[in-house]
Amino acid sequence: MIYNYKMLIAYDGTRYNGWQKQGNTDNTIQGKLNEIIGRFTGEEVDVAGSGRTDKGVHAKGQVISFKLNSGLVDEKKLEPQYLMTELNKYLPKDIRIIESSKADERFHARLSAVKKLYTYHISNGDIYDVFSRDFEYHIEEKLDVEAMRAAADYLVGSHDFKSFCGNKHFKKSSEREIYSINLEQIYEEQLNGSRIIISYEGNGFLQNMVRIMTGTLIEVGLGNILPDYVKSIIAAKDREKAGPMAPAQGLFLEKVMY
Amino acid sequence: MIYNYKMLIAYDGTRYNGWQKQGNTDNTIQGKLNEIIGRFTGEEVDVAGSGRTDKGVHAKGQVISFKLNSGLVDEKKLEPQYLMTELNKYLPKDIRIIESSKADERFHARLSAVKKLYTYHISNGDIYDVFSRDFEYHIEEKLDVEAMRAAADYLVGSHDFKSFCGNKHFKKSSEREIYSINLEQIYEEQLNGSRIIISYEGNGFLQNMVRIMTGTLIEVGLGNILPDYVKSIIAAKDREKAGPMAPAQGLFLEKVMY
Repeated sequence: MIYNYKMLIAYDGTRYNGWQKQGNTDNTIQGKLNEIIGRFTGEEVDVAGSGRTDKGVHAKGQVISFKLNSGLVDEKKLEPQYLMTELNKYLPKDIRIIESSKADERFHARLSAVKKLYTYHISNGDIYDVFSRDFEYHIEEKLDVEAMRAAADYLVGSHDFKSFCGNKHFKKSSEREIYSINLEQIYEEQLNGSRIIISYEGNGFLQNMVRIMTGTLIEVGLGNILPDYVKSIIAAKDREKAGPMAPAQGLFLEKVMY
Repeated sequence: MIYNYKMLIAYDGTRYNGWQKQGNTDNTIQGKLNEIIGRFTGEEVDVAGSGRTDKGVHAKGQVISFKLNSGLVDEKKLEPQYLMTELNKYLPKDIRIIESSKADERFHARLSAVKKLYTYHISNGDIYDVFSRDFEYHIEEKLDVEAMRAAADYLVGSHDFKSFCGNKHFKKSSEREIYSINLEQIYEEQLNGSRIIISYEGNGFLQNMVRIMTGTLIEVGLGNILPDYVKSIIAAKDREKAGPMAPAQGLFLEKVMY
């Protein structure tokens, strides 16, 4: 019998080359999971993730699926909680399985996903916080969060996001729907400034899309782009028109919904 | 003219051998500050810290003081804000100066300190949080926080804390006063458990004292020691009677009061 597994994964992406092997890069999260699950169960697995995360990007709620054949694997190892506990002993300290269950045979981490939530974390103050320096992007100059909110409103909805796609050779449809973008600003005395958390919820995101949207919103926050101009950036369908890609370290895949 | 500086420092202690050189260890926070300040100002400085932190212990609010001679250092470099901004450019990423001012000539970071606040961070749940794994101690078995609170109450007050001193050859008075110990428990869905933050406020702490008190409270939380027994541990004045030393990574020097 073939069992289909669904697991919730958290990882600190700092020292990895992203979720998936691209070209001849090695040391990926997916590669590490394939290796450890394969070694523990004795079966070769091909873990599917809900989506790729870039080099240095983190996940609090990546979802994976993979199949195991009950004829080939010890029965004890097929029990989802036991499997999770044991795999966590062999996985590196910066990757953790948080939840584990058997799923319907038709479930697939990427193909079944209907909605995703990403957050981007900015520390906006004089001095960055040493304890979260790998998990947020530090900007000294004060950002105009109200202007960023106005700009974000133009991104919400169904659009062709070609201007926000990092893959120049992308041939498929670059139409996506963003359900909401929220900017939360929390004042922090220690930073002599604030933390800004941008949450993006949508039905799917193109390569680098969240980082390019964030880079564009930062340009608005710095006063280099007017919020209105975001309309023209979308309409142009030209990557050159959008802002730079914000650094990977501030980005988290928070949640995938099915 | 001699200027006396007071600076507030934060550091991630993970990769350092503690605040101060002990024996022939190198790579200390104090050593790094002496080196960078000395190189930038051209004057040899001897930075005083409010107290030593052990190898791997962190600080959100360490205080330092040191002196500069206006006859030997560029006038521009003597300005506290400028000095802080420039030093932060040369300091490693895991050490930051957060505040900088000129202080009264009699001010000394250690000798003038009257009160200190330390916090110890425990994640008490099934799975640890990958993003704070270097900044808290993970315990899977559920801790009885009420019992820990009852035990902590015995530690509050003026006592001879010899049983909680890591230095066997300590010859001076081991009498200290603890003003308060608070245990805060915050439930966290992701951990399937809680975070426990223990705050210790006192007029001074012996070597390893906070970590030994924490290790003892953890023994109480695990049910290995009854809260009442803490009275006997204090009375014994014997390090062997107290619990083990809790790991360095969970400890933060939060604040020093003058």
